[in-house]
Amino acid sequence: MIDGNTEIIAHIGYPTHTFTAPKIYNPYFESIGLNAVVVPMGCRAENYPHLLRSVFSLENIRGALVTMPHKVTTVGLLDEISPTARVAGACNAVKRLPDGRLAGDMFDGTGFVRGMRRKGFEAQGATALVVGSGGVGSAIAASLAQAGIGALMLFDLNEAACAALAARLRANFPAVTVQTGSRDPAGHRLVVNATPLGMQPDDPCPIDVERIESQAFVGEVVLKAEGTALLAAARARGCRTLVGTDMLIEMIPPYLEFFGLPTTDADTLRRVARLES
Amino acid sequence: MIDGNTEIIAHIGYPTHTFTAPKIYNPYFESIGLNAVVVPMGCRAENYPHLLRSVFSLENIRGALVTMPHKVTTVGLLDEISPTARVAGACNAVKRLPDGRLAGDMFDGTGFVRGMRRKGFEAQGATALVVGSGGVGSAIAASLAQAGIGALMLFDLNEAACAALAARLRANFPAVTVQTGSRDPAGHRLVVNATPLGMQPDDPCPIDVERIESQAFVGEVVLKAEGTALLAAARARGCRTLVGTDMLIEMIPPYLEFFGLPTTDADTLRRVARLES
Repeated sequence: MIDGNTEIIAHIGYPTHTFTAPKIYNPYFESIGLNAVVVPMGCRAENYPHLLRSVFSLENIRGALVTMPHKVTTVGLLDEISPTARVAGACNAVKRLPDGRLAGDMFDGTGFVRGMRRKGFEAQGATALVVGSGGVGSAIAASLAQAGIGALMLFDLNEAACAALAARLRANFPAVTVQTGSRDPAGHRLVVNATPLGMQPDDPCPIDVERIESQAFVGEVVLKAEGTALLAAARARGCRTLVGTDMLIEMIPPYLEFFGLPTTDADTLRRVARLES
Repeated sequence: MIDGNTEIIAHIGYPTHTFTAPKIYNPYFESIGLNAVVVPMGCRAENYPHLLRSVFSLENIRGALVTMPHKVTTVGLLDEISPTARVAGACNAVKRLPDGRLAGDMFDGTGFVRGMRRKGFEAQGATALVVGSGGVGSAIAASLAQAGIGALMLFDLNEAACAALAARLRANFPAVTVQTGSRDPAGHRLVVNATPLGMQPDDPCPIDVERIESQAFVGEVVLKAEGTALLAAARARGCRTLVGTDMLIEMIPPYLEFFGLPTTDADTLRRVARLES
């Protein structure tokens, strides 16, 4: 029950109609007796810089969940950002530090890596193919590097975006071998479709499934709970897989930790929010 | 349940700990299936002008409930204010007009007048003594004038504040006879203590109870559900009375109407919020 002691987590984006975070965080907060609430704030791009500063001038703001179309803009509005956010070129989490400065992080890739881990895949030392160097692909590549992946092959039809991501990765994670230009999954223990392809039934498949190894782990970012044709084909080959929607719920525990709130696991979140797992 | 379609009513003030509005509005909204939520926003004076503009740049903002210490400042930040707010010199309600301009009104006095009406007192043509020319006293005087009171006697130890209120009333409500300088309740059908006196047990009584007429209606703004010593003495003389907390709940129906939301009555609000009447 909201009262005068309730803390706010601003969920900022536009449009807001598809927001799911309030329906997961708020029942969780209620279940643990935490007086905080996620509030959707529909904010157009031109109003965002002022809004972000104003929201963080509130005494009872705990943090912000930032989503489209503000993730990239946010990087330039903060005082401090994490290496992951720097490589991703985007922030989806903002908090106020004790000294008043604003700090940002990016948990899209963290959600993906946590999802993989829960399914038994460890990034440490592995080789991975990441197809798609846009916002989510960059975030996943950054989180894989952070998690200790051995080598990354990046591919994007936009070669400049791909090369720029490679450069940011090499600068921030020198221990990781980063290459670009091939989308052949052969020889990779992890294969990631970080493009939107697969959302529509007649989308071409961005990866040649026939060349994915049966021991590989295959993940995607398309937000279809049942997975795309790529995942179905990978499963048929014996691969372990991760659907895009898992990434969303796996992002919440690190968000909670970032905000300094009691955290939990994805299963508990699904249960309190009455989501199917 | 808050989701991506929820509209926000910002409850802006500082400190927020004593806010009661969320605990009344939100259960009411839930009871009628309205997807809106009152959210407390703790905002210091120096951050308020920016915050107000930013909050009203949101796509899903329905309005703002403004409270201490921002009611007076608000008058200077809006594009349009009601005559009541102009006389009161304060706004406690803000909304965005269809053309994007911000409009304000003031419902402290409206709540008082509605409370009186519910107890059978009609202002039309009556004479009233209002002791206290601060924010709430000014708002009550303005609402009494708006409601058609015949004559107002204003008193405040701060004679300049009292004279200024009288001048604003005369300018905006020329049909009302406005005088200042006496706090003798004799001859008044309505007697209002619009000072904080009575909150503490050893406060002096601002009005000579012995001279209040038994047919008079006596109200106060002190937020004590059981009423102060003044009201107890007035009741002992046979007067009808209005406690300060009634004003708060009676303010909500006109607020709802101002925001363009389905309105209701004070009894329904008390019931859904499980408040004692």
